Formats: sequence, C-alpha cells, structure tokens
Amino acid sequence: MQHRTQVAIIGAGPAGLLLSQLLHKAGIDCFVVERKSQAYVESRIRAGVLEQGTVELLDRAGVSERLHREGLPHHGVQMALDGELFRIDLHGLTGGKSVTVYGQTEVTHDLILAHQSRGANLVFEADEVALHDLTTDRPHVTFTREGVAHRLDCDYVAGCDGYHGPSRASIPADVLRVFERVYPFGWLGILADVPPCDDELIYSNHHRGFALASMRSPTRSRYYVQVPLTERLEDWPDERLWDELALRLGPEAASRMTRGPAIEKSIAPLRSFVAEPMRHGRLFLAGDAAHIVPPTGAKGLNLAAADVGLLAEALISRFLDRSEAALDGYSARALARVWMAERFSWWFTSLTHRFPEMDDFARRMQVAELSYIRASRAAQAVVAENYVGLPTALTTRLAGRGEATPLPAPPRAVA
Amino acid sequence: MQHRTQVAIIGAGPAGLLLSQLLHKAGIDCFVVERKSQAYVESRIRAGVLEQGTVELLDRAGVSERLHREGLPHHGVQMALDGELFRIDLHGLTGGKSVTVYGQTEVTHDLILAHQSRGANLVFEADEVALHDLTTDRPHVTFTREGVAHRLDCDYVAGCDGYHGPSRASIPADVLRVFERVYPFGWLGILADVPPCDDELIYSNHHRGFALASMRSPTRSRYYVQVPLTERLEDWPDERLWDELALRLGPEAASRMTRGPAIEKSIAPLRSFVAEPMRHGRLFLAGDAAHIVPPTGAKGLNLAAADVGLLAEALISRFLDRSEAALDGYSARALARVWMAERFSWWFTSLTHRFPEMDDFARRMQVAELSYIRASRAAQAVVAENYVGLPTALTTRLAGRGEATPLPAPPRAVA
Repeated sequence: MQHRTQVAIIGAGPAGLLLSQLLHKAGIDCFVVERKSQAYVESRIRAGVLEQGTVELLDRAGVSERLHREGLPHHGVQMALDGELFRIDLHGLTGGKSVTVYGQTEVTHDLILAHQSRGANLVFEADEVALHDLTTDRPHVTFTREGVAHRLDCDYVAGCDGYHGPSRASIPADVLRVFERVYPFGWLGILADVPPCDDELIYSNHHRGFALASMRSPTRSRYYVQVPLTERLEDWPDERLWDELALRLGPEAASRMTRGPAIEKSIAPLRSFVAEPMRHGRLFLAGDAAHIVPPTGAKGLNLAAADVGLLAEALISRFLDRSEAALDGYSARALARVWMAERFSWWFTSLTHRFPEMDDFARRMQVAELSYIRASRAAQAVVAENYVGLPTALTTRLAGRGEATPLPAPPRAVA
Repeated sequence: MQHRTQVAIIGAGPAGLLLSQLLHKAGIDCFVVERKSQAYVESRIRAGVLEQGTVELLDRAGVSERLHREGLPHHGVQMALDGELFRIDLHGLTGGKSVTVYGQTEVTHDLILAHQSRGANLVFEADEVALHDLTTDRPHVTFTREGVAHRLDCDYVAGCDGYHGPSRASIPADVLRVFERVYPFGWLGILADVPPCDDELIYSNHHRGFALASMRSPTRSRYYVQVPLTERLEDWPDERLWDELALRLGPEAASRMTRGPAIEKSIAPLRSFVAEPMRHGRLFLAGDAAHIVPPTGAKGLNLAAADVGLLAEALISRFLDRSEAALDGYSARALARVWMAERFSWWFTSLTHRFPEMDDFARRMQVAELSYIRASRAAQAVVAENYVGLPTALTTRLAGRGEATPLPAPPRAVA
C-alpha cells in the first residue's frame, strides 16, 4: 500500500505526536508510524513535570485544555539532606517561572485524542519499520501492518522513536558520535492512589541513598528510592518500600506520608546518552532517539518537547517560506540545549545519589554542596533556572558559539 | 631555659605570625616557635590572591601599609575554554567585592618585620619542637635551639605549623578524623620578571590540560601548567614551558604574553585534606595544619587567615572577657568555612583540569559547565561569591546547623 506525506514521523510518543500536531496546525501534512499498540503507548508511566516552555508548546498545539484544568502549578521544589528539608523558590528566583505537574501519560492521551478526533494519519502496531534513501531528496519509510506491506513517501523523516527505535540506527556509525554514562544504580518507583506527602516534590540526599517524593495529582502519588541494579522487585513488598521512603525522606515528610497499595512498581536504570549530530540527510532526530538523561530533575520529556519546538519551526520555515536555514541549524541549536540539560541532570544525579565508590571525602563534598545551596541565594538561583528550563535565548547563544560541534581535536594526553 | 607566655604559637608562616600580631594588638602575650630559618620562611613561593576578609585582618593587625600601596586590586577574573576567554565580573556580581594580588612572601615579610620591630618573641630554627599536656590546663612546648633545651609554659597552644608540623601529629589518632583526595597531576609553576599577559588572572581549561596566568606585580608574572606527577623539571626548559602556556592560554592571551628567564620553577602536587576536629584540649589548629586545598581558586592562605581571625577573636574573648564560649565553638565555626572552601577548590579543580580517566562524556560535561557559566549570570554569581570569599554570616549559619560535626552515622550501603 502506498502513501505520500510531507513529514513521516516515526514514533507516537509525546515527541512524535506533538510534532505532528504542531505541523498540522501550520497546514503541513504528517503521517505518524508507531511500532507499539495504542494501549501500550498510553499506559507507559513516565515523567510528570512540565517546564513552562513545554506547556507553551502544548498550548500552541491546541491540546492543553485539560492540562490547564488538572495540572498542578508548582512554584517551588524541596530538597533534603539526611532528612532535613529546605526549599528552592523557583518562582521567586526566576522572575516568576514555574513548572506544572501533569503526567506524561496524560499528555500522550490528550495528543492521541486530538489526532483521532481529526482523523489524522496515525498508525499503531506497525511492524518492520525501516527508513530509506535518507540522503536523497526522496526518502521513504516502509512497514508492515497486519501482514500488509506499506510504503510511505515523504519530503522529510522525523525520528521520534526513542532510544531503541530504527531512526538513529539508520544513521551510519561513522557519521554518528555517541557519548554515554551508565549509573551504578536504578530507581525503584511506586505509583499509589494516596495523597502526596507534600504540595511540592522532594529530592532527598540521604546517606542510605536517594529518594524522591513526587505526584501525578492531589490523589495519586509517585515515589522513588535509589536501589542497586541487582535488586529484585519481589524483594520489595509495598511495606518495605514505604518504610525505606520514610527513612530517606526524613521525619517531617514521613509524618505526612500516606501509605497505600502499589498500582505500579518497577525498577528503571539511569543513563546519560547523546548522539551527534541530530540530523542525517533528510532525517531529523528528536527526543530519546538522540539523547537520554537520568530522571533526576525531570528533563527527559521537556528536552524532547524543546527539540520538537525547534524542529516544527524549522519544517514550517522550510514548507511555508522555502528556507532551509532553520533545518540546517536544527542539530546545533537542539544540541546546545541538550548538553545544558545533560549537564544539569548529571550534576543533580551526582549531587543526590549514593555512589558505591564514594569515599568519605566525596560524601563530604555532597554535604558541603547541599549545605551551600541551602545557604546561598546565588546557588539556589542556579538550581532554579535549570529546573524550570534555561531560556531559549541562552541555549541559542551557545549554539552560535559552536558548542554543539564535535570537539576540536581528538584530545591528546597532557604534554 | 624556661619561658612563660599566654599563647604558644607553633609555626611562623603567615597564619602563626598573623595570629601573634592580632593577639599582641589586644594585649595578649605570645611566643612563636618556628623550625625553619627566617630566610627559608621568607622565600617560600606560595599563593598571591587575598580575599577582602584577609586584607581586613591584615589591616587590623597593622601590617597592611605596603599591601595597600603595592597590592593590585582585581575586580574580575578571566576564564578560558580551549583558548577562548570570558570574564567573571567579581565586583559587579558580589555587590562591590574584589580580591587583591599580593604575594604570600610579601605578607610574611611584612609580618616578620612588624614582629622584629617590636622585639616580639619569635624564634626561628627551633629543633625537636614537641607539644605536651594538651588536655590539662598546664600545656607546654619544648624545643632545642643551638643545642640548648627550652621549655615554654602557656595557657593555650596554636598549631599553625602546616601539614607536616608536630601540632596535628600531637592529637591522638582515635580522636582525629581525616578526609583526603589526591589529584593525579601537579602544577608546574614558573616565576619570571616579565609583565603579566593580562590585568587579571586567567584560569584556562584546555584539552591539553589546565593553565593559569597569574602575577605578583605589574613586572612579575607567575604561570602554571598542569603536568603529570611523573614529569621532571629538567624536561621543561623555559622555552618549552612558554610554548605550552601559549597553546593552553589561547591566541588572545598568548599574543600579549612576554617571555623571560625563570626566577623559580617547580612542580607541586595537588591535594584536598581536612582533619576534624580543629581543637584538642588546649591545642587549636589553624591553616594548613588542619586542611589543605588544591591551589585552584587560591583559597589556602585565605582559609588560614579566616581560621586565625576566628581563633584570635576566641582567645581575646577568653583572656579579656573570661568567656570560653568562642573557644568551644571555634572548631565547628572554622570547619563550616573550611568545607565550603574545600568544596569550591575541589569543584574548580574538577572543572578546569584534564583527568587521566576522563572519557568523552566527562569532557563534554566540563565543556557544558564552562559554556553554561559563560552564558548564565546566576552561575557567574556562584563563582564570584566563592572566589571573593563567602560571607562569614553564611558560613557561621552553617556551623550552627552542625555541618562541621562528624557524619551522623557510618554510612550504610544502599538497602
């Protein structure tokens, strides 16, 4: 079966769906191809903290009505050192910015609804998705569905298919440079229909390990504890997990914590990953297809949305103004922001987690840094401006300076 | 030979001499004992950047006349990433604070002169210095000089005798907790009578390794490059060192760099070290006797001066007001500041040096952090407030919160 579209979008996660919706608003035709089922896509439990820039993109895409009704604006975030809480005033330190708590599953659901209500080209359960002729001006995508072979001709391909998707894998290894850091622990998460222990999130550095108190709504809580990657879920009955959370979050938070049965419980690894460049011929990568951050600081979905914002703008400029300049600048501009978020996520993870190889000096450096942040308004401003999302003006300026280009030379050893 | 004083001070470096001078101004009798010769003490090449708080202490000690005449006030500091310079506006970012470039050798010289002009008790070349009965109310110090045995009875002992001195070694190992980090590189330094390449210092992160352009006066320059600890001085003729500096500082700085013969050239290791507590009975440690920082950020001398300021205040309160409260609080207050400076020095070293084990991801984190600092006023404010010295109010507040006490429990492994 043959199809023709302007932009073939691989992946119906929030990145692919948001891109499709933004392009549709501009009158550009898209076709979204997803390997998994709609039920699977809608049930994936992921992040839940949206930067203001992400909310603005969802506004522009016309899918934020429920988000504004049900989302929880957060003007601050709590941190804890060995159980003692202190607050970062996001709103006061960033000239009035905030974040919104609204689950990624809800964002995805709203986007799918918008697609289906307008009868958009959105195909789930596509098998054998493959990208072809990306460095020509006639790229195309093939897949099969229920045994039928499909061919999708297009002008551009957007690879929004995550870390394991076929898009990045279609780029020859010799033009791709990858950067990676795997962390020696995972996050054991629990979702439960109980009210959160605090109005705001709590990121806790405890000498037993990291813990996070988060939420999806006033009646649904999401908690995490750092565990070794060798840990097995069956060794963590709900009560053990609640006990551990009470210890690591400290007495103040624990006294307000409501326990309840797990709706979902899982262990996720933590990883930093970047692939450069984010463009190959007519293929443009966005979101997890090009980069992964550890979840500390909730940058993953926001980074994907920022990529999509830039890519939508560039494709609109290409189709409406016939200018390729923005497409040519996409990879550098996106990567400038990506590296800033990678840095923040890596730093925030390093600051708050217990590392197996950590000696007493390294532990004292964590304690000193957290104590310093608690005492210094300048240090709090740094946390705040990264947490709410760095201004696009800042990351764009960095892109112009070439931060996103490969390093100047293979680093030589010290002379 | 018998002597009697109120405060026996071990060590005639800047810490011991400044303490002696401040106590003398308050009418308290001191006796300073130093193992090395006066010539040796006066010729040790050390740091050259004084925080405002250090200058104020030297004012109070009445030894700052020449410092104000010859010292160079610096309102900013330069940083460089692979040769591209950017500036941290210390003055503008800290509400008008600055640092003063004035060599430690000059500080020491001024202090010795003040001691000798008033005929103070200051003994050089003391052998076999030993501390006794520190946990009684009759401590004493013994030493020999030119074959004659001396006994110095006192009320208190101030251990200002550096990392290798007898003071810290007099504290039983089971009451002392030490924290240490040794860095896998050293600094090769050159002193030359040539004008500096810039009005301000330049801290450069280059993929070949760290470099620092510093100065002692408008006609005397001090430069450093990071080298492996296995490096030998004889492999670094002056021209090779100037060539390497030109590469690492980048074309802009190199074009203004004047080369000249080395007056002094040496390789120094980098170390972070803290001993807790800083008091044992009637012995109080100050400066390098209790803590070492790597030289990046020039905190060593300033931290010693801050210790001395607190210790002088506490001893004055003891002798003049008969209150021991300040002496009892000395260790916690000093350590709160020490850990903040240790954190800054460790972070600034980690940010600017090339580590042998550094992979591509770690290098990108350095590049991202430096790029972020270049672009963010909040991040620059953090560098600036640490560089000029954190307000005493901030570090005192931390001391009250117990940051300087030992960790709450021997850290257990992650559950």
